[in-house]
Amino acid sequence: MGQSKYLTGDSAAIDEFLDKFDVFLFDCDGVLWSGDHLFEGVPETLELLRSKGKRVVFVTNNSTKSRQDYQKKLTGMGIPSNVEEIFASAYSSAIYISRILKLPGPRNKVFVVGESGIEQELRTENIPFIGGTDPSLRRDITPADFAGLADGSMLDPDVGIVLAGLDFHINYLKIATAFQYLQRGAVFLGTNLDSTLPMSGAFFPGAGTCSVTLANMIGHKPTALGKPSQAMMDAIEGKFRLDRARTCMVGDRLDTDIQFGIEGGLGGTLAVLTGVSKKEQWEAKDAAYAPAYYVDKLADLRGASS
Amino acid sequence: MGQSKYLTGDSAAIDEFLDKFDVFLFDCDGVLWSGDHLFEGVPETLELLRSKGKRVVFVTNNSTKSRQDYQKKLTGMGIPSNVEEIFASAYSSAIYISRILKLPGPRNKVFVVGESGIEQELRTENIPFIGGTDPSLRRDITPADFAGLADGSMLDPDVGIVLAGLDFHINYLKIATAFQYLQRGAVFLGTNLDSTLPMSGAFFPGAGTCSVTLANMIGHKPTALGKPSQAMMDAIEGKFRLDRARTCMVGDRLDTDIQFGIEGGLGGTLAVLTGVSKKEQWEAKDAAYAPAYYVDKLADLRGASS
Repeated sequence: MGQSKYLTGDSAAIDEFLDKFDVFLFDCDGVLWSGDHLFEGVPETLELLRSKGKRVVFVTNNSTKSRQDYQKKLTGMGIPSNVEEIFASAYSSAIYISRILKLPGPRNKVFVVGESGIEQELRTENIPFIGGTDPSLRRDITPADFAGLADGSMLDPDVGIVLAGLDFHINYLKIATAFQYLQRGAVFLGTNLDSTLPMSGAFFPGAGTCSVTLANMIGHKPTALGKPSQAMMDAIEGKFRLDRARTCMVGDRLDTDIQFGIEGGLGGTLAVLTGVSKKEQWEAKDAAYAPAYYVDKLADLRGASS
Repeated sequence: MGQSKYLTGDSAAIDEFLDKFDVFLFDCDGVLWSGDHLFEGVPETLELLRSKGKRVVFVTNNSTKSRQDYQKKLTGMGIPSNVEEIFASAYSSAIYISRILKLPGPRNKVFVVGESGIEQELRTENIPFIGGTDPSLRRDITPADFAGLADGSMLDPDVGIVLAGLDFHINYLKIATAFQYLQRGAVFLGTNLDSTLPMSGAFFPGAGTCSVTLANMIGHKPTALGKPSQAMMDAIEGKFRLDRARTCMVGDRLDTDIQFGIEGGLGGTLAVLTGVSKKEQWEAKDAAYAPAYYVDKLADLRGASS
């Protein structure tokens, strides 16, 4: 791979870097914070960018939260933001369903495997759905369920889409129900396919938990609406009318964030070393992706002013 | 692929076929019955084989049942059998752990993702385990769980193996717990990796549901102890002291049963058309496996006597 430029401590290089971009797309976990721990100097760094007239967009694969939920999280972490600066995979999925997929009714209902964030964004786009947080699905499967799913009597004939995201209440009944819809021809979408979720300083099952299982059963992967899927980049570009050449993706993961920026043809990518990927990964001979720039931590962008 | 010989209605060919083998390994669902429906003539066909001095072994990937459970099922279906004729993936897993893997204590405890059948077979082999049907794991994950799993305080330091089978009570907490053990170096085993489970005339999530998700997170597949894994064939051979050249595998699935018999170097394989695979599949030019023989239904082996 080509050389990644190290910016930490190099004020001239930082100034040159900042001058190249008008828009910064920020991954959040691993960049701004880890779990509930805000990294030092992050609000000041974002304020610096805004004071220089840069547009800031928070791009997250977190599908459990709506943009409203996510804005509350940013506020709670001490990061000023507004809802319009937030682009999450649940929102990306709703946009894709309503504005790109546009299935004809009545067979445009969504069976949701996921939490309330997805439901909120579907409601915003007036997309009909079932499943999700419905308490009647939070139980063990019964012999009557096996019969009713097999003969279709328990299924809603209007469901034409299965949308799978991160579901902390995943169970056999939901997986079996989603699988029946897919076998009957429903379009298979995933908010994002992250195999793991960073939490409490460790890794937990991610949104891929449910979609990889369904993909294994049905024999094909879902269309993914989170990073690194370019369906998400297209939606971001459409919403923010950004100039890709003057946009930089900032993230901690080579195989989601950096790949997302490179495949999206952005003017640049910046990796931070406060999250998942280590510089040894992109310096390896067989590295598939390398960031154009990297810093030890985001606050290093403040340069001499820090 | 080579020609598969069609035996239905051909008494001479059937006699020749039967003379070639001393042992018949039977897949059950799709061969003997479908769901709760016993196929016509099955008990009589098994009786015919026994009357000719053939050994009959029931080989199932069903990991939710112990051999005792499975014998009750056979009896309930009207099929005489004894426990020693049954070889199920839960038993195969227990044998593998106790006689092949043989981890030194105390770090030889198993974290089970699955139902009571696995637990019963582990007990039979005196293998310590946790998880499984433990009711304390049948609940939603809490913030305290995230913390306790992340820092290890909720984990048993003696767990050295994760064994994943079919679990009708699968949930986020169990998947997250299994993943923590795997990240800490536990050996990853799967009773079997079937993506789907035939039930009520339809397909439902199989034992692969949990293992494929864990494999996606940890980055490698489990060692599988069910068909078509040859670990199961080795265990069957060891237990029954059979002559592979005089043994025939009977099944309905090309990619489990027939593959299992062919890769195991058995003298023959017999496909029945009462289950998953259709003859068009092995007659296709790109078919990876084809049975040596096939019949429309198992009872056709009774030939002119039927």
